[in-house]
Amino acid sequence: MPQSQRRTLVESITRLSRRGASKNLKKILHRVRPADLAALLAEVNDAEVLKLFELIEDPQRRADTLSESIPELQRHVLRELDDLQIIELLDQLFADDAVNLLKSVPEERAERILEAWKSPDSASVDSLMGHEPGTAGAIMSPEFFALTEETTVEEAIKTLQVSHHDLEMVFYLYVVNELGQLYGVCSLRQLVVSNPELTLAEICETDLISADLHTHQEKIARSVARYNLLAIPIVDENNTLVGIITVDDVIDVIREEATEDLFKMSGTDPESFEEGSSVARSARARMPWLLASFCAGSLSMFVIGRNQDAIASIAVLAAFIPITLGMGGNVGTQSATLMVRSIALGRASTSRILRVVGREIMVGALGGLVYGLALAILAWAVFYQDAQNQVWSIAQLSATVSLSVFCCMSAAAAFGAGVPLVFERVGIDPAVATNPIVTTATDVVGVLIYFLIASLLLPI
Amino acid sequence: MPQSQRRTLVESITRLSRRGASKNLKKILHRVRPADLAALLAEVNDAEVLKLFELIEDPQRRADTLSESIPELQRHVLRELDDLQIIELLDQLFADDAVNLLKSVPEERAERILEAWKSPDSASVDSLMGHEPGTAGAIMSPEFFALTEETTVEEAIKTLQVSHHDLEMVFYLYVVNELGQLYGVCSLRQLVVSNPELTLAEICETDLISADLHTHQEKIARSVARYNLLAIPIVDENNTLVGIITVDDVIDVIREEATEDLFKMSGTDPESFEEGSSVARSARARMPWLLASFCAGSLSMFVIGRNQDAIASIAVLAAFIPITLGMGGNVGTQSATLMVRSIALGRASTSRILRVVGREIMVGALGGLVYGLALAILAWAVFYQDAQNQVWSIAQLSATVSLSVFCCMSAAAAFGAGVPLVFERVGIDPAVATNPIVTTATDVVGVLIYFLIASLLLPI
Repeated sequence: MPQSQRRTLVESITRLSRRGASKNLKKILHRVRPADLAALLAEVNDAEVLKLFELIEDPQRRADTLSESIPELQRHVLRELDDLQIIELLDQLFADDAVNLLKSVPEERAERILEAWKSPDSASVDSLMGHEPGTAGAIMSPEFFALTEETTVEEAIKTLQVSHHDLEMVFYLYVVNELGQLYGVCSLRQLVVSNPELTLAEICETDLISADLHTHQEKIARSVARYNLLAIPIVDENNTLVGIITVDDVIDVIREEATEDLFKMSGTDPESFEEGSSVARSARARMPWLLASFCAGSLSMFVIGRNQDAIASIAVLAAFIPITLGMGGNVGTQSATLMVRSIALGRASTSRILRVVGREIMVGALGGLVYGLALAILAWAVFYQDAQNQVWSIAQLSATVSLSVFCCMSAAAAFGAGVPLVFERVGIDPAVATNPIVTTATDVVGVLIYFLIASLLLPI
Repeated sequence: MPQSQRRTLVESITRLSRRGASKNLKKILHRVRPADLAALLAEVNDAEVLKLFELIEDPQRRADTLSESIPELQRHVLRELDDLQIIELLDQLFADDAVNLLKSVPEERAERILEAWKSPDSASVDSLMGHEPGTAGAIMSPEFFALTEETTVEEAIKTLQVSHHDLEMVFYLYVVNELGQLYGVCSLRQLVVSNPELTLAEICETDLISADLHTHQEKIARSVARYNLLAIPIVDENNTLVGIITVDDVIDVIREEATEDLFKMSGTDPESFEEGSSVARSARARMPWLLASFCAGSLSMFVIGRNQDAIASIAVLAAFIPITLGMGGNVGTQSATLMVRSIALGRASTSRILRVVGREIMVGALGGLVYGLALAILAWAVFYQDAQNQVWSIAQLSATVSLSVFCCMSAAAAFGAGVPLVFERVGIDPAVATNPIVTTATDVVGVLIYFLIASLLLPI
């Protein structure tokens, strides 16, 4: 639904709700798709959310809407419902979606609900909840379509026709042996076009890609993306088929991982994404990288502190510190971003990576040349008057600042390109706090370079 | 294929290639999946790539491998092939993949190849090439499975069985009227489980989500993700079905857009991602944001330049400039990242957004309090000696720097949270150059705050 349409709808819903026109509201809520309803609910204020949620009559729609909602909204609604109402919602959902919803409930309450919930699904939800977050086991769906090797195509189609259970996005039929171990896969299309008398073992593809229960979700996402799969089967240590992860869940993982990368790069903890978390908790989550930045900043403080005499005699030197470090920090962040993403997308192969680093340094140096010259001219124009009757000349000052910008930008680009690369080689996630590390390293090295050049070119 | 396995494979391939053991190489190359082959080729050096590529015997495998390769590799291989060889590759590919491959060929050459290429596919490739990059038309596949409304289920299954053309990922059957206008959709599963005598019009879902040729790919990706689709039909202005976009292409779009957001945030142009682009071009692409940063930096230079006397008399003031601005810049970038991502993922609804901004400012202020106090203590310890026989006392200095860090971090958090929000409200992409804007704004405001506080607390 386009945003303009959504806005109009939000307005009419709010109006109707204020007028208490429940009947009209119910009609509208029945017409809109659950995913769109979820987006609508996010737009109205908290008090309205609950009223509207209760007006969704069909329990399936209600469960789907909540399942598609952002976590903040889920938490808000679930807080207001009693355990029995939550169980009614869980009954409508696939096991993996039920697990997701339960994650928006405080842990103790979730356990209590799981115990009270008597349904064939509750056992599988319970076992899913036991898997470590971020692994295949935690996001897989235990509902899949699997038949044994000796089943004929005709029987398979019949089974499909009578299976009353609404399976999540059926498009692959998995073939297992009598022990439930994964043997092969065939698409519904293969089933339809094959001779009905053949067995599944005869028509299925046995060279298939599967993943282990403990595989990290990012790896799963990469496999699905790389091999253009619609679902990937998940097996336990005995190669027994225990679940599938479908492409729609993979899309969520990819978005989640992109967010995580962004957050890691800026040294922000994804936890602070949750509206529910307190200011203190958010602040604490970000402290480590601010601490690193504080320590590096202290170093630059020492460096400048040791050069107090130079500054006392040539106070104008202080004026160029922020611009020099700022230009360096920005070019370094650009190089770091490029590098982190190259590594994440697998575009940074061994044979090419050094070329990319070299190119980044060249780009930094070129930028340094251009902006160094620009700063020389600017310094000349602005501080020409100040240079009269001083121990230093304007030419010396201009030369110092332009050379400093040039060196600082080149060094920053080298850091930016180098830090993620070194991290990756020693097994640290290259995205981790790249920006704070690169900018603070630039700050320290930048002031060192600056005062070194100043001491060489100016009468200090 | 896990990375360790890939590394071993790369080693044995390189060894075999050096020994000229073509027969063994061919065997290996025949066994590995095209997507894995593409990853392997990215690991070997350029000279080997071509040799190995020619050893892939099956033309379909060869085309698929190249199609799955990174653009750098595609360009390198295509440069070495003649037009006829490229046409042979194109013949093996689906139209959308052929279009992608042709994008790695210089434009003039691509046109020449398209003219020389006589195949039923070349016309559709040609028309796809005409669509604006980034729109549905440019990434859709013109190969889909569509039948008219009156077709019976039985006929549809027969058509599916005899259709020799290998359609890209068939799982939906589109239903059109006699003019080719989109009427509905049904899944293969529905087809299999329905009464064979019913017509498609009777069993299909008519409330379906489609998109226009000109829709931006990011919107398409959002629809597919939101409604958990496997493919989305694309229609022209007459509602005629002209193509489909499958979920595997959507995954590529999502990754591409995440990269773009990251690049935009750091003011890096995605163009500089391409290894082929020259240093000068990369540098030019990044210049605008460096220029903005330069202009803001110049402002901070003016501010400090005007406070030369203060610095001349209290040189130690210069020592705290980088750490104050650095801490502010980092906390501002964290807030900005949080905000940009909240907006991108649709988690920043009107009613919640101001609360998030408020919380960010509180987090910044809390950080400022902690690190301001830490800096006061550090300043006291380090500059205690220097404060003897000066016009200023160590208490005044400590108070100045701690208050400055507090104000600067609070202001930076406000910028970081505010800039993306303002951008979004006035219709600018919130990700655009957030980091350079926030850090440079922090630099300027930071020095203003710093000297204001210094002038109030210190004898300047």
